[in-house]
Amino acid sequence: MGEKIVTAGVILIGDELLSGRTQDTNLGTIAKFLTPLGVDIKEARIIADDAKTITRTVREFAACFDYVFTTGGIGPTHDDITADCIADAFNVGISEREDALNELRVRYSEEELNPARRRMARIPDGASLIINPVSQAPGFQTRNVFTLAGVPSIMKGMLVDIAPRIEGGMQLLSITVPAPGMGEGDAAGPLAKIEAEFPTVSIGSYPYFENDRHGVNFVARGRDRDVLEQVEAKLFALVDEY
Amino acid sequence: MGEKIVTAGVILIGDELLSGRTQDTNLGTIAKFLTPLGVDIKEARIIADDAKTITRTVREFAACFDYVFTTGGIGPTHDDITADCIADAFNVGISEREDALNELRVRYSEEELNPARRRMARIPDGASLIINPVSQAPGFQTRNVFTLAGVPSIMKGMLVDIAPRIEGGMQLLSITVPAPGMGEGDAAGPLAKIEAEFPTVSIGSYPYFENDRHGVNFVARGRDRDVLEQVEAKLFALVDEY
Repeated sequence: MGEKIVTAGVILIGDELLSGRTQDTNLGTIAKFLTPLGVDIKEARIIADDAKTITRTVREFAACFDYVFTTGGIGPTHDDITADCIADAFNVGISEREDALNELRVRYSEEELNPARRRMARIPDGASLIINPVSQAPGFQTRNVFTLAGVPSIMKGMLVDIAPRIEGGMQLLSITVPAPGMGEGDAAGPLAKIEAEFPTVSIGSYPYFENDRHGVNFVARGRDRDVLEQVEAKLFALVDEY
Repeated sequence: MGEKIVTAGVILIGDELLSGRTQDTNLGTIAKFLTPLGVDIKEARIIADDAKTITRTVREFAACFDYVFTTGGIGPTHDDITADCIADAFNVGISEREDALNELRVRYSEEELNPARRRMARIPDGASLIINPVSQAPGFQTRNVFTLAGVPSIMKGMLVDIAPRIEGGMQLLSITVPAPGMGEGDAAGPLAKIEAEFPTVSIGSYPYFENDRHGVNFVARGRDRDVLEQVEAKLFALVDEY
């Protein structure tokens, strides 16, 4: 664990995520994977299966963040264009690779390895493979960009191979203090005071309205456990007082 | 319904969406609201509670898309900074407004209207209110940008007041053909042929792996119902043949 802040950006690729057909869950999975490694996701974008947009976004994110994760668009069909876009973004070539074909051979016979499936062995030059323990077709790492599948179970399976490649920073810790029945407007004043007293901690308040219950959850985030515990005590006192 | 393509961008604001604490569902709700109105979401961004990022993203999206939706950050607490950022993005002032206060008075007594809750009546100059039938604190429309609550039930309630303000275009229609048991790699070749034959239709294939079942859903999207029906017939034939 270093002392520095390590950042990530996530690019979720797929028309189906924007049309409301599919609810993304990959962002949350990646966030839960990165938090203990000491990597903070700073931004996520959900973009269409459009080559220009993918290439531009990858370029922008690769320059902005320590690590970039893309999900989606690495399957065998004509709308799977992510690998080509990554190659474009880094101005490198792309070709069918023997190491990637060998991964596919674990699952498919030579007969089943038709031109469509062989597309999944096309990897940008210089990229290293990311093992896919679920359905074999590999992801790949190009410099600081990890290119993963879109299907949640496959995406999650690929994270195992990524973990050792991440050099994390100081972990962002968080505590949650629930305040059932409380309104955000009641808490706002004292909350701002606590935040002013502890400038290294950021405090969010998240109201909920479910069936007949309502209330607020206070979440404090920081990198120093002792300081966070002091904030937690203050938050519990605030709720008790109410 | 016009003949033109009408676009939207969605900006989901909140640290909790990036940390994995909260799973966004607002994008899907907005997509399902916009599709029948003939508005296509082209991109969505999930960004932190950071003033510079919010302002920059709103400016960029307002220039790129016909309509922009923001969710989150309009509550009473210190981390609710969206209204100020919208004012900044459009270089207009912001102040407590009587019409917004009157909305809050439906819910709160004068005593309950403390400085924190009055913050929710701060509206960028020239914006019109968006009625909140769930918890009263209004959203607002600044030119082509709709600023909505982050809590899903409240966000959804605000859409009612927005519908009449949207000038939609040609609706994007879609049909789904399920292919249980089929692999994407089996379908890719014939699928590309169908797409080449119908250039106005885009076809996606969405594999699933659930428990012991796997298969693909083919989704075709286009604006001409007759053409889409021809594609649907071809897709069913493809599945039957398999």
